Amino acid sequence: MDLWMTEWQTQHLGMSVRIKETLFSGRSSFQEIAVVESEPFGRMLVLDGVFQTSLFDEFIYHEMMAHVSLSTHPNPKRILIIGGGDGGTAREVLRHPSVEKVEMIEIDGMVVDVCKEFLPEISAALIADSARLEVKIGDGIQHMSQAENEYDVIIVDCSDPIGPGEGLFTKAFYRDVYRALKADGLFVQQTESPFYHQELIRRLWLDVDDLFPVARMYLAYIPLYPGGMHSFTMGSKKTDPLEADLRPLPFRTKYFNESIYRSCFALPNFVQELLTAKTK
Amino acid sequence: MDLWMTEWQTQHLGMSVRIKETLFSGRSSFQEIAVVESEPFGRMLVLDGVFQTSLFDEFIYHEMMAHVSLSTHPNPKRILIIGGGDGGTAREVLRHPSVEKVEMIEIDGMVVDVCKEFLPEISAALIADSARLEVKIGDGIQHMSQAENEYDVIIVDCSDPIGPGEGLFTKAFYRDVYRALKADGLFVQQTESPFYHQELIRRLWLDVDDLFPVARMYLAYIPLYPGGMHSFTMGSKKTDPLEADLRPLPFRTKYFNESIYRSCFALPNFVQELLTAKTK
Repeated sequence: MDLWMTEWQTQHLGMSVRIKETLFSGRSSFQEIAVVESEPFGRMLVLDGVFQTSLFDEFIYHEMMAHVSLSTHPNPKRILIIGGGDGGTAREVLRHPSVEKVEMIEIDGMVVDVCKEFLPEISAALIADSARLEVKIGDGIQHMSQAENEYDVIIVDCSDPIGPGEGLFTKAFYRDVYRALKADGLFVQQTESPFYHQELIRRLWLDVDDLFPVARMYLAYIPLYPGGMHSFTMGSKKTDPLEADLRPLPFRTKYFNESIYRSCFALPNFVQELLTAKTK
Repeated sequence: MDLWMTEWQTQHLGMSVRIKETLFSGRSSFQEIAVVESEPFGRMLVLDGVFQTSLFDEFIYHEMMAHVSLSTHPNPKRILIIGGGDGGTAREVLRHPSVEKVEMIEIDGMVVDVCKEFLPEISAALIADSARLEVKIGDGIQHMSQAENEYDVIIVDCSDPIGPGEGLFTKAFYRDVYRALKADGLFVQQTESPFYHQELIRRLWLDVDDLFPVARMYLAYIPLYPGGMHSFTMGSKKTDPLEADLRPLPFRTKYFNESIYRSCFALPNFVQELLTAKTK
């Protein structure tokens, strides 16, 4: 049987992946969830037809979410992850010895359950049930509206801004994030592709840049995502990552290193122009 | 009519692009040549079914071929381009005021003719017929075997290492490149994706690193190419790009800038390990 799955990255662009086997397919209250065994990317989580993460390249996304933000903060102890149901970000965050407590709020409990069953390499931290990790199934937006001066680092590990992730790309949400952070806190969010989501990036950049003393965008190569160039937006109350002292990480990484940290904030001219277009 | 073209990036991975119109389709002595008007990437050159360049993203590849190499050399005057039939690399090279003479040797004259007719934005330098540019239709490998101490910078702007580009990824060729360069010369070559062409990259890195006093790899985000992460390998007789003084470019660029130059040589751990795997 010749089985293929295509993600329509835009209405004019598709990525087709040869599939060996469907391991899970179901529908939660929020979305369609599938886990497939693919040829090029190994096992993959697919939500509403969008490729979310794969065993082939998940290390890039999760390392770049966790280690760039935690390396920027001088002493990250209290961490909040919004979303991140596959557990990969929690796994990387918990590798930092300074971290005392990680809260993770995922809206879709079925994503957590499915990832624990079918993607244990990624969800290892959820399975291990560490005393430092508290997983809540609930609405991250609602949680944020009640938190104040609590967190050192907030990581918004969301899916695309359609469906359950939509409210995580609004100024109201960033205002709540600001309030939930301690005086030297910072947050980071995955913010899609500078090639294909320029309007979204321009809008959210304006919001983050308006609210936070330091706003920075950084990039990583992620082959599973449209265009291969993925952006992350950081809002920081105090530390500028361009001037941060870097602590050597006491563990091995597959993508992140000091050179990558120093270079990931370098933006091609067309991305710089995207960010400054409406702030002039 | 719902028209799509799929490039099989690997046997398990396809990129499908919505097509408005086929502008040219023909066969030269070397390959199948097509120019299509696509929705996501605008006009595209396609050789043997492989997407070569597009109006949407060609600036990235051509700027990173020309400006990284020419910025590394202290005073680039004599330039040789092997391949580069679409003219985009020649266009960027000729923007450098120091450049006195560019030779371009493309094996397939039909590529040059088709690009001049259907992709004038890219082939502008070929059309303009500058006195500084000499275009030869012929075998770059043969030309290289006869050149000695002639060039400041050699740019190997080849297609994939199957078909006419195959002999451009061999140690014999790199030896000829070395001899053709002046005492402070350097060369750069596009060397495919570190995600999908690891064996090729490992082999050619070993060859370049063995022959040249300085070997460096750099990366750029290219959405048209597999994985979005594209590698370029530089062999230099003298100047190390990590220590080069950068001259400000007296023209505007869309991707390249000083930060990009300083950061593009930063390699993720898995790429570093790929390069050192067989040289230990």
